[in-house]
Amino acid sequence: MPDTTVVTTAEELLEHWQGHRRVTRKMIEVFPEKELFEYSIGGMRTFAQLTGEMLRMAVPIANGVATGKWGEWSEEAEPKTRDEILRRWDESTAELNRLWKTIPPHRFQEEDTAFGQWKGTGIWMIQYAIDNEIHHRGQGYVYLRSLGIEPPAFYDRS
Amino acid sequence: MPDTTVVTTAEELLEHWQGHRRVTRKMIEVFPEKELFEYSIGGMRTFAQLTGEMLRMAVPIANGVATGKWGEWSEEAEPKTRDEILRRWDESTAELNRLWKTIPPHRFQEEDTAFGQWKGTGIWMIQYAIDNEIHHRGQGYVYLRSLGIEPPAFYDRS
Repeated sequence: MPDTTVVTTAEELLEHWQGHRRVTRKMIEVFPEKELFEYSIGGMRTFAQLTGEMLRMAVPIANGVATGKWGEWSEEAEPKTRDEILRRWDESTAELNRLWKTIPPHRFQEEDTAFGQWKGTGIWMIQYAIDNEIHHRGQGYVYLRSLGIEPPAFYDRS
Repeated sequence: MPDTTVVTTAEELLEHWQGHRRVTRKMIEVFPEKELFEYSIGGMRTFAQLTGEMLRMAVPIANGVATGKWGEWSEEAEPKTRDEILRRWDESTAELNRLWKTIPPHRFQEEDTAFGQWKGTGIWMIQYAIDNEIHHRGQGYVYLRSLGIEPPAFYDRS
């Protein structure tokens, strides 16, 4: 197959990511607030900490791919309440939509160094952020199930 | 951005999937055999059952996208030993590589009905299989951590 085969478009990729982000948002909503910040299994991070990492990746990566400008990888403090996480989630949703339109097409296949540390193409960085979210959200599903709480359906991206 | 923006190529997508499949293979190897088939949290499926689902999706979906021919969604019996899972995993790896070269480029964006049940484009079906693997493998990470076992690194796709 030629390298110009369009397997997915930029617009589809954004919708794919935002669909996953809608599932993650439902997870945050369904977690009891105390457990969101305190519960973990096997010494792993809490779901609040994991969503904090997702927030620190999504917009900064889209911004870096769009502009070529990267700050340092941030380990900033997490939000302290569920409402604060949800508020930041929704801000990121809007900001991702805005930034996406500004990504120059060639940047998806161009090599860069994310946060001054990780070398790869734009698509590699974006895909890493999406995969990391799915991976850690899968962890959150186990937390919820072990608490006797039904998680949102994985396949429902509405 | 025009819809013809190449965000990822077919070849990259296969390598991306096989990279994830290499991580999952390491998970299967690191699971103690008894726990692979018996351990679960919160009433969820065992990791052996989850890998069985991954195997029932990967090659059948690639084959369906390549040929337009779909069997029924199979709930066939899982392998009974770790060696058998690994053997089937490696067979699927080779078969995916073989099938991939036969996918007509237009099939990624063409609508079809997977297993006679799920409507979507070829890329949607393939992406679903990859995401489902990442999601359930994330679940396996919690199983391993709760057993005190270090899982393979998520970012190492070698």
